Amino acid sequence: MARNTTERRSASSKPRVRTSISEGQNFPDVRETSENGDILTADEYFKIVRKSNTRPALWKWRDVERSLGELGKDPIREAERRFCTLVNSDCQELTGATPYCFIGIQLIHPGEVVPAHRHNSMAIYHMLQGRGFSVVEGVKYHWEKGDTLACPAWAYHEHVAEGDEDTIMYVVQDMPMLAAGRMLFWEEPMGQENIRHMVVGTSPSWSVTRTDAP
Amino acid sequence: MARNTTERRSASSKPRVRTSISEGQNFPDVRETSENGDILTADEYFKIVRKSNTRPALWKWRDVERSLGELGKDPIREAERRFCTLVNSDCQELTGATPYCFIGIQLIHPGEVVPAHRHNSMAIYHMLQGRGFSVVEGVKYHWEKGDTLACPAWAYHEHVAEGDEDTIMYVVQDMPMLAAGRMLFWEEPMGQENIRHMVVGTSPSWSVTRTDAP
Amino acid sequence: MARNTTERRSASSKPRVRTSISEGQNFPDVRETSENGDILTADEYFKIVRKSNTRPALWKWRDVERSLGELGKDPIREAERRFCTLVNSDCQELTGATPYCFIGIQLIHPGEVVPAHRHNSMAIYHMLQGRGFSVVEGVKYHWEKGDTLACPAWAYHEHVAEGDEDTIMYVVQDMPMLAAGRMLFWEEPMGQENIRHMVVGTSPSWSVTRTDAP
Amino acid sequence: MARNTTERRSASSKPRVRTSISEGQNFPDVRETSENGDILTADEYFKIVRKSNTRPALWKWRDVERSLGELGKDPIREAERRFCTLVNSDCQELTGATPYCFIGIQLIHPGEVVPAHRHNSMAIYHMLQGRGFSVVEGVKYHWEKGDTLACPAWAYHEHVAEGDEDTIMYVVQDMPMLAAGRMLFWEEPMGQENIRHMVVGTSPSWSVTRTDAP
Repeated sequence: MARNTTERRSASSKPRVRTSISEGQNFPDVRETSENGDILTADEYFKIVRKSNTRPALWKWRDVERSLGELGKDPIREAERRFCTLVNSDCQELTGATPYCFIGIQLIHPGEVVPAHRHNSMAIYHMLQGRGFSVVEGVKYHWEKGDTLACPAWAYHEHVAEGDEDTIMYVVQDMPMLAAGRMLFWEEPMGQENIRHMVVGTSPSWSVTRTDAP
Repeated sequence: MARNTTERRSASSKPRVRTSISEGQNFPDVRETSENGDILTADEYFKIVRKSNTRPALWKWRDVERSLGELGKDPIREAERRFCTLVNSDCQELTGATPYCFIGIQLIHPGEVVPAHRHNSMAIYHMLQGRGFSVVEGVKYHWEKGDTLACPAWAYHEHVAEGDEDTIMYVVQDMPMLAAGRMLFWEEPMGQENIRHMVVGTSPSWSVTRTDAP
Repeated sequence: MARNTTERRSASSKPRVRTSISEGQNFPDVRETSENGDILTADEYFKIVRKSNTRPALWKWRDVERSLGELGKDPIREAERRFCTLVNSDCQELTGATPYCFIGIQLIHPGEVVPAHRHNSMAIYHMLQGRGFSVVEGVKYHWEKGDTLACPAWAYHEHVAEGDEDTIMYVVQDMPMLAAGRMLFWEEPMGQENIRHMVVGTSPSWSVTRTDAP
Repeated sequence: MARNTTERRSASSKPRVRTSISEGQNFPDVRETSENGDILTADEYFKIVRKSNTRPALWKWRDVERSLGELGKDPIREAERRFCTLVNSDCQELTGATPYCFIGIQLIHPGEVVPAHRHNSMAIYHMLQGRGFSVVEGVKYHWEKGDTLACPAWAYHEHVAEGDEDTIMYVVQDMPMLAAGRMLFWEEPMGQENIRHMVVGTSPSWSVTRTDAP
């Protein structure tokens, strides 16, 4: 093989960037095939591609309130939200209220801040109670009970509860779809160096600033 | 070409079903290529595949209420829901609060029924006000303010408002994603014969039972 | 509860359609909550929403050819395709070459017909070998080695192999994404009465015309 | 508003990270609502959410070959691939062969390297011609005509063509779905500092290392 990449690159006046994984390296791990690459017949495939139907699910507010009551006793942690989430266990691997949709109920005490962060799942916040503001991409949005705020994918957002009442947000995200597709990204706290690909084994945890994070 | 399909099929003891569009037909419309099949270079493609960023959007409850007030004056129509929807116009062709997510606010007066129907977009209902029940796939789910009901894709569902207060539901669907992917289905009223593929030109309208439907 | 639906409907001049599941029925199955509706804390949720990373997978042509060779000995069955599919077993529940993408290699002997059918997963066919034509929504498209045919979601399509050589198609679909989202539809053979929602328990099998179908 | 965040944080023994956009800042841009937040009635919405049906598309190999022939005259550029892509113009904003699927045909001359990079769209490579290897996440996969390699989302990958023949790859990605959802990420060349969110206005171009990039 005549690799002429070195010659071509040295002619460039731009500072050299490392663009090759393979150049000048030994690869102890060479594959002609892969153990996880299955070849199935149509008969075999049609038995597994269909999934079991999911039943409807109903979550009562009194149960959500009880969960929020417990969560509200602890201080809000920096790199994690204080919320509970509604999961239809029939969806199995796709952990949402429906296969691809996350529903969370978030509690913020007056004066508390949900620290700025971003992710490439979109987020929609419907305010069930309280008042305050969110800063999304540098713009301050005031909200009160009944308002809806849509936060686009990968927009920095921070929530601040004001007034005397707890703020309760009804939160919609497409996180389960992105997580199952292995395409979910998270940045928290703010900073290019904190961008993480959310798969097990690559990102140590959701909670980078916690001392007890796994 | 030696088509032996007729021979093979006649050997079958099962009643014959029509499985071929082409058999015994003349096709005046024969194509060697197609006018809508473009071939773009990487340079051309990378200019159009990225989309403009969408700004956050904030919807005030007082504006939603005003819209619901207008909608509530008319009787609920059989084949259509009485709701308003929050659309971020920055998403352009992807008509949702975010590119792939629909948010609707649905109003049901006491005693009214949202007729049974189904679609392959999932639906999540958070009850902002009122009480009543939904019948989903033959099971009756009672709900009141604060409860959440998840209705799986393609489950028959019907909502009935009870009590003295208007029922207001906050509704989440992945309809924009399915609609844009041309994979959305609707059945209304109930009946296999009413299953429609929701694309312009194929389904005359969302409202099959309305006399003024386009 | 004052149900005035009967009164309202009788005023209509249109023939009455059944729009209510609940009217005049007894529901033995009434729920105040549901066993499959979990409420998880953020800590509990973040442990399960992230999935394990998937490894790359490599499938060798010689292995695909061996599988096709076996499949090619049997006659093509009416309600099923003669293909093998490449599945990365690391994707677990999401049964594709990647979590949301199906890759199939389809074999059609000269003179054979893959019967007309449709599904709301899209299908892209790249012709690796052979020549013939497809009829898609009533238009006949001639193809030969190297050509690509894109079949939109829910378009009727039928393939006919011509010439002396076996036709081999490289097939791309988004079937795993639709199947896992419980939003996949199939119609085969042609006919509104054959539209099926592809979840276990609802559709008996992919193969409606086979006597040995489960 | 009583912001007690400063007090709470100072009690922490961990080094302080910047977690707030709003703290100590003036926001000239304060919103009570947003110009891009529309509220539509059901009647208005159902007119726009359905999309026009897309026609099938057929791309002839001779046309692809002509395009590749032109592209092959130039040297491969570091931060960009030498490929052409099949776009069904009926899909409009969703720039793919189908609304959510990208098909590309990539040409690599013997000895050339497609530099290492990654993206959160998955990539499937079917080898139409040639032989060589790919390095994916540090593992070397040898391939030849007919083989298929699946590269998971966000896996580093680099392709090297060997032998005497041009390598031609048939490439499948879900790029259009991620791009339209504003959730697409790219890293090229390798390095955390090069991770970009692929929306217009945020990422200057696909081609960071080109001097003539817009």
